[in-house]
Amino acid sequence: MSNPLRVTVWNEYRHERNPNHSASHVYPEGMHAPIANSLREAGMEVRVATLDEYDHGLTEEVLANTDVLTWWGHAAHHEVADHIVDRVQARVLEGMGLVCLHSAHYSKIFKRLMGTTCNLKWREAGERERIWVVDRAHPITSGLPEHFVLEHEEMYGETFDIPPPDHLVLISWFAGGEVFRSGCCYNRGAGKVFYFRPGHETYPTYYDGNVLKVIANGVRWAAPHHGPAPVFDNQAPLEPLPAH
Amino acid sequence: MSNPLRVTVWNEYRHERNPNHSASHVYPEGMHAPIANSLREAGMEVRVATLDEYDHGLTEEVLANTDVLTWWGHAAHHEVADHIVDRVQARVLEGMGLVCLHSAHYSKIFKRLMGTTCNLKWREAGERERIWVVDRAHPITSGLPEHFVLEHEEMYGETFDIPPPDHLVLISWFAGGEVFRSGCCYNRGAGKVFYFRPGHETYPTYYDGNVLKVIANGVRWAAPHHGPAPVFDNQAPLEPLPAH
Amino acid sequence: MSNPLRVTVWNEYRHERNPNHSASHVYPEGMHAPIANSLREAGMEVRVATLDEYDHGLTEEVLANTDVLTWWGHAAHHEVADHIVDRVQARVLEGMGLVCLHSAHYSKIFKRLMGTTCNLKWREAGERERIWVVDRAHPITSGLPEHFVLEHEEMYGETFDIPPPDHLVLISWFAGGEVFRSGCCYNRGAGKVFYFRPGHETYPTYYDGNVLKVIANGVRWAAPHHGPAPVFDNQAPLEPLPAH
Amino acid sequence: MSNPLRVTVWNEYRHERNPNHSASHVYPEGMHAPIANSLREAGMEVRVATLDEYDHGLTEEVLANTDVLTWWGHAAHHEVADHIVDRVQARVLEGMGLVCLHSAHYSKIFKRLMGTTCNLKWREAGERERIWVVDRAHPITSGLPEHFVLEHEEMYGETFDIPPPDHLVLISWFAGGEVFRSGCCYNRGAGKVFYFRPGHETYPTYYDGNVLKVIANGVRWAAPHHGPAPVFDNQAPLEPLPAH
Repeated sequence: MSNPLRVTVWNEYRHERNPNHSASHVYPEGMHAPIANSLREAGMEVRVATLDEYDHGLTEEVLANTDVLTWWGHAAHHEVADHIVDRVQARVLEGMGLVCLHSAHYSKIFKRLMGTTCNLKWREAGERERIWVVDRAHPITSGLPEHFVLEHEEMYGETFDIPPPDHLVLISWFAGGEVFRSGCCYNRGAGKVFYFRPGHETYPTYYDGNVLKVIANGVRWAAPHHGPAPVFDNQAPLEPLPAH
Repeated sequence: MSNPLRVTVWNEYRHERNPNHSASHVYPEGMHAPIANSLREAGMEVRVATLDEYDHGLTEEVLANTDVLTWWGHAAHHEVADHIVDRVQARVLEGMGLVCLHSAHYSKIFKRLMGTTCNLKWREAGERERIWVVDRAHPITSGLPEHFVLEHEEMYGETFDIPPPDHLVLISWFAGGEVFRSGCCYNRGAGKVFYFRPGHETYPTYYDGNVLKVIANGVRWAAPHHGPAPVFDNQAPLEPLPAH
Repeated sequence: MSNPLRVTVWNEYRHERNPNHSASHVYPEGMHAPIANSLREAGMEVRVATLDEYDHGLTEEVLANTDVLTWWGHAAHHEVADHIVDRVQARVLEGMGLVCLHSAHYSKIFKRLMGTTCNLKWREAGERERIWVVDRAHPITSGLPEHFVLEHEEMYGETFDIPPPDHLVLISWFAGGEVFRSGCCYNRGAGKVFYFRPGHETYPTYYDGNVLKVIANGVRWAAPHHGPAPVFDNQAPLEPLPAH
Repeated sequence: MSNPLRVTVWNEYRHERNPNHSASHVYPEGMHAPIANSLREAGMEVRVATLDEYDHGLTEEVLANTDVLTWWGHAAHHEVADHIVDRVQARVLEGMGLVCLHSAHYSKIFKRLMGTTCNLKWREAGERERIWVVDRAHPITSGLPEHFVLEHEEMYGETFDIPPPDHLVLISWFAGGEVFRSGCCYNRGAGKVFYFRPGHETYPTYYDGNVLKVIANGVRWAAPHHGPAPVFDNQAPLEPLPAH
């Protein structure tokens, strides 16, 4: 029997602590709480880390013991220290999975791993979003319906300035007329990165059963697979070379 | 705890039954035997099916109870009945995994799913093959070294006339000067297809630990994930349409 | 200076010849007419071929002198002879480009090249379609706006049962709530295949400037590039092999 | 008739100016010279820029007038100023093509656009390299043979720590036993990036006709296509939203 996946749920955790922000009413225990609870119920070993902790809660020791890191950030991307971004990037390339949620599209770590601006269109109008599966062979779609609805969400629209995903799994339809690549998979180094769109802080998105299912599936997909550790730099030949 | 994967190991099983063919000495119980044994040891539920059985051993009932089908064929591709190919293709698109081994590149089912000729260069000279991992984030590389060696194999060389793989996992080097895309992943319908190169019938390739590991990993990767069952054809609108 | 591209515009050409069908009013000279005219204006050398001609207008000689073939079919896919499908497939794999329009998703040639059912959802309600560019680096998007609108079109919705495109260029939004991968690129053999969604026979879609621009760009992208002609089958080694 | 492509050939240009370095004998006018000459003969408008010029020769004005930038660097990657890397990255995402040659795999700009370490195996043993075409539908293979030989080159071997290419076009075989993904295409923002492996400074690689053909094809492929300029940030709805 395999050990449980070790997941660290990272949250900026600022909006929810501001009593004047509606997020504090929607997520009184933080947006990380329903995500962490759901992953625990799925049998994973979950810890939470937040921006205002020492090293943003992402010490070398925490990352060394994390199989998959989920990330939600929004207003304070610039407060994430560059050396912590370096550390997370190195761990991803070494095999740790990364699941970037919603406004994490604009986090330093996602932009670093993508190499593009990761910019997009947005609108806060609480409109209807329909999320469609477009690759039903992909494990992230396990147990999902063909499409599901979020009655009120922030719109994110194309152009989404990301590299073409290695696998595109989900596409969103918005009532206001836009579409968006909402479930995007990338292999980077020994690690896997999944971007999943929904989750504005003023809507109860992270209590939605389908959203939580996608996150759990994304974490499982992004778990390390222990492929070979590469050897780099100068190498002796494996076959005899002719003298010259 | 999840149920064991149900695997059907399909083998043409002609060379090995011909006492004048060296395959009969290398694989006295058939090439399916070491593959099936290895998958059983990995905890899978394995049955064997061969060309000369009724329906080539691939009845509706067998396929309905198969999660992943592995396929080895060579000299008798043309003897596989078209209605069985239809049946296998339908099951793959419905979610059954398919792992095509070596000369199965030229099987009816692989060509059908690829849409190309699937032709290639070959040479039977028993030369050295080095198989290199090129996507270590992929689950098929789990537990593999960066590269492994088969001392004596048939050469397969590019141009390999296949669609660009959705993921390219392995590339072979041959002593005679060729390269080959040896581990190729495709999503097709709800199913996943993995092509894996080695396995000429006159060499003991299917006793090699790394080869068997790739096959087991490929079977696990190709297992169904139970994404949504699609609804096709005429649909009522989900949103009210303006009269016009 | 390079020679003009030689394009064959293939059309089923049945609906438009039926005076009781509204297509006969929208496209009195056939749906091929505005497409052919637009490609001629773009400097290409265009001929037209239709189902009811000898060999459906696709003789060996015509195909041998075609750089890119565009295809529109709908009600009579089953009347296209299999040996002509074989012939077109062989030419595509040999380098001829293929641009499949709208209901050609269900043509024999497209299904043959894809290996999947190519099924989808549809609705004839004359609803609004918004077509969004999602890969602005791709030549097919040259000169397009970020998105464009077709006021009245048939809906096509996901699940679209195709292989994951090598490049996904366009995604459609429909008023009724669906999305669709509307611009899909595939390399197959030496040939390139572009699927482009819009073009129901009862709407004036093929008079739309953006639609015609996508078709012209698609034809240019799909034009042969004269890569190497592959050599298949048995090969002598390029490097000396050790005796054994 | 279209205007000629405007290409800037960037070269670190240090080895060749050192009379004790063999590169000074192989490339007495700099490695940029044969590349620039070949692109000029192909009808392009070529300028040269080098590390030790003001702004490394890559002023805002130069980049604004460059369609495609080729890059060769090796020993002085760290001397390229970060603000120039920012500038080049911004121009690539805006549409300028980038062709990275050989040891440019480790340049700041390539690593920035890839998001990975871009590390690899290497060996300076002057061994034989065979470069195989694996996607003959791709324009970069135009006019190439199925494979070509460089008698003496530095080895680069997998693991090459890059994202899976959007298109993999070339794979190298090395006499010493390694393989390498030698022709890799990426779309990033509105720009296209091509990595091409050969070109160690002590071998006459950039006088080889096939190598020069690949570079010219790569430059043509990477040329801007003038897709839509994206609009980002807050957007009004395109469709009326229900009050709520």
